[in-house]
Amino acid sequence: MTDIPDFSKGDGLLAAVAQDAETGEVLMLAFMNAESFAETLATGRAVYYSRSRKRLWRKGEESGHYQEVRQILVDCDGDAILLKVRQQGMAACHTGRRSCFFHEVSAEGVRIVSEPVVDPLALYSGKHD
Amino acid sequence: MTDIPDFSKGDGLLAAVAQDAETGEVLMLAFMNAESFAETLATGRAVYYSRSRKRLWRKGEESGHYQEVRQILVDCDGDAILLKVRQQGMAACHTGRRSCFFHEVSAEGVRIVSEPVVDPLALYSGKHD
Repeated sequence: MTDIPDFSKGDGLLAAVAQDAETGEVLMLAFMNAESFAETLATGRAVYYSRSRKRLWRKGEESGHYQEVRQILVDCDGDAILLKVRQQGMAACHTGRRSCFFHEVSAEGVRIVSEPVVDPLALYSGKHD
Repeated sequence: MTDIPDFSKGDGLLAAVAQDAETGEVLMLAFMNAESFAETLATGRAVYYSRSRKRLWRKGEESGHYQEVRQILVDCDGDAILLKVRQQGMAACHTGRRSCFFHEVSAEGVRIVSEPVVDPLALYSGKHD
């Protein structure tokens, strides 16, 4: 029987995708450990684990722009997480963009396909992982 | 200057999310190495790297249900990939479901929120990672 989610995989860190619950836009991808998952479930706000800072990362702790979690889904084999969220403050990305996924890669190269919706300096200076 | 994508991170494996290009549904999450990314870009079909089988995993190679890639997006810091795809054959999941994300986790426990749309035995016996 697979644990849902199964933190015995991925050295205790599972990839977690945040998707806008209303528009379906994929906002970001980060990682969760068991503690961040439990806190997300308990508080209804997205909590990740920062691999670079090696600590819990309560999304919005610096900017106030937290993610209100509407639904938590886990995949077939228990090692990936999908959060359907309401993003406070417009921008999920530290660059001030709505989504972190703004580099389009094609045979022609890399192109930036979205612009900031808020001033990143007004958010915070950190980056998310 | 960050490489987009940057395979120097994550021990050469980056998380990749496949999203239905039309409906916005998140179908699955898997991993890519540089070789699978290059082949995806060159062929227009999603190619992942199977961590369990330690080899390239050409999605649909057994079932014929490949993913036609409409757009490739990479995140702000170069370490996550979003594929907007057209999923052939209805089901992205080895269980025969449209999406791999069918376990809803809440304070009440785990609940299955979608059912197979195709017979998984008609797909293949393998699982995706």
